Amino acid sequence: MIETPYLLFLGDAPDMLAAKVAIGIRDWRPENALGQLRLPGCGADLGLPDMTLAEARAAGVRTVVVGVANRGGVISPAWKKALVMALEEGFDLASGLHNLLRDEPDLRAVAEATGRALHDVRVPEVAYPIANGVKRSGKRCLAVGTDCSVGKMYTAMAMERDMRAAGLKATFRATGQTGILITGDGVPLDAVVADFMAGSIEWLTPDNDPDHWDLIEGQGSLFHISYSGVTLALIHGGQPDALILCHEPTRTHMRGLPGHALRSLAELRDTALPLARIANPACAVVGVSINTQHMTEAEARAYLDGVETETGLPATDPYRFGAQKLVAALAAI
Amino acid sequence: MIETPYLLFLGDAPDMLAAKVAIGIRDWRPENALGQLRLPGCGADLGLPDMTLAEARAAGVRTVVVGVANRGGVISPAWKKALVMALEEGFDLASGLHNLLRDEPDLRAVAEATGRALHDVRVPEVAYPIANGVKRSGKRCLAVGTDCSVGKMYTAMAMERDMRAAGLKATFRATGQTGILITGDGVPLDAVVADFMAGSIEWLTPDNDPDHWDLIEGQGSLFHISYSGVTLALIHGGQPDALILCHEPTRTHMRGLPGHALRSLAELRDTALPLARIANPACAVVGVSINTQHMTEAEARAYLDGVETETGLPATDPYRFGAQKLVAALAAI
Repeated sequence: MIETPYLLFLGDAPDMLAAKVAIGIRDWRPENALGQLRLPGCGADLGLPDMTLAEARAAGVRTVVVGVANRGGVISPAWKKALVMALEEGFDLASGLHNLLRDEPDLRAVAEATGRALHDVRVPEVAYPIANGVKRSGKRCLAVGTDCSVGKMYTAMAMERDMRAAGLKATFRATGQTGILITGDGVPLDAVVADFMAGSIEWLTPDNDPDHWDLIEGQGSLFHISYSGVTLALIHGGQPDALILCHEPTRTHMRGLPGHALRSLAELRDTALPLARIANPACAVVGVSINTQHMTEAEARAYLDGVETETGLPATDPYRFGAQKLVAALAAI
Repeated sequence: MIETPYLLFLGDAPDMLAAKVAIGIRDWRPENALGQLRLPGCGADLGLPDMTLAEARAAGVRTVVVGVANRGGVISPAWKKALVMALEEGFDLASGLHNLLRDEPDLRAVAEATGRALHDVRVPEVAYPIANGVKRSGKRCLAVGTDCSVGKMYTAMAMERDMRAAGLKATFRATGQTGILITGDGVPLDAVVADFMAGSIEWLTPDNDPDHWDLIEGQGSLFHISYSGVTLALIHGGQPDALILCHEPTRTHMRGLPGHALRSLAELRDTALPLARIANPACAVVGVSINTQHMTEAEARAYLDGVETETGLPATDPYRFGAQKLVAALAAI
């Protein structure tokens, strides 16, 4: 649906965490990420060529993707001028923000005048059912985190990559805007109406071959009071056979919630597993995924060794060291 | 906003459970429930006078309330004729169904032609914030259930009644269509977009007097995979100081989920309390509310005695025997 390749719009993102969408596209579909467009004050840098709109057109870019996720999902007035220019220069726009491109009168007017498309991937396009809890064929794995933005999507993406490389049947199932922008398909779970959250995940992960694994993108955290309900709907709608615990050890408090201390991997296991077994009594915790981006390689390896000793589970940073340990753990259940 | 009194439309409701909305209005605002309107095949009976539209008009009715909650919230074609006639006879319509009155072209056309109002209380009218987890002043109590439709709303309503009768400060906080239709205010949580669920409950239960109790209407159940995410958002957005455990002992499986066995009160306590303490470490389970409608009075009293012995908590059926035990338990924390 969304024409590739992309120019990744970073706006005035204060830091790299705010550029999560763009980073995901760069890392998992690098062939689609030709360049970045940054405004004054932007504190993020993807390491891609900085391109003007003219340069992007010369390079073959078809769509400008808003690669920034704000708290609250607002389209900043500071971005408007650049986005209007992009439409005028002949690019489509794509965004996963809560605040829709189509709801901005100026963007809508220019898009209509120029015949360009506005893709709001956050908007659910499907009338999802209410979850029925019926067991489906095939296997499902879900990454759950001690916090938001700790690497759940990367974990599932890396497992898909390594499983496919090993000749196994695996499908990444996107539940957020980045995943949908990367794969072109999925459920924008944050924007689904409450009653249909779990049903949307049943819809996303239907019956499949007995040896096929759905690798479901996690959202939020059971410990993050702003989004914990979304996480539980994902656990109960996904009916996972396997859980991967995800953690970012250098964080000092829950993202966006000063005063809320980070919980441990053991607390996550003891909280998530009984809840998952309500939907699937056979569910097991099979491994740990650590986001070691703020550690040296030696620190990372020492930390992973410690986690394996403490939890008795295989632990890796799947982005840094590969997901093979987690793939092997799935094969064992 | 909604003009009273009401005629309660039961349509072709197969049983009394489906007429939950109408029953709630009858029980908690009897002065507004003048009569019932039933179609052929209706298996529900509120014990109110059956009225034609002409009789309802003569009795002073202003609004016909759709008092039936279907699975999926659909407006049945079988209801259409009666609802169109009600508009033509000069009544407003009010409904809490997912499928909106305003989205039915025939109802909308007749309402516009006759100048009548269509009230869809399920539609959120507020731009709720994302939850911030900040501690609010005042106290909050939340009823959680082993299943859906076990008496959580009645528990909170009965506690409000008995607390006010005792001169205490208490406010029932509606989170579903019945509660909103009864009180005229609240959050239609089932219909809130996922990311804003917990924030909507923070909005609903703001800072208050230190000795004031919000009695928050529960929704769903942590054990009901279709709606558990809604329940957890309510627990984390509400930051309850006190939990009441609710149970209906005669149910053989989770409502709408054949094959999913009902969980015990002990399992509910052990699941809900650690989750509630993520948002409010001081939260305590203070009492048990049993829905004994399918038991004789002797059976009910014996069952309650057993629950008190097993759990060490005060137990009552607040609708049948009053909520004083639960009110006393709140006063003790």
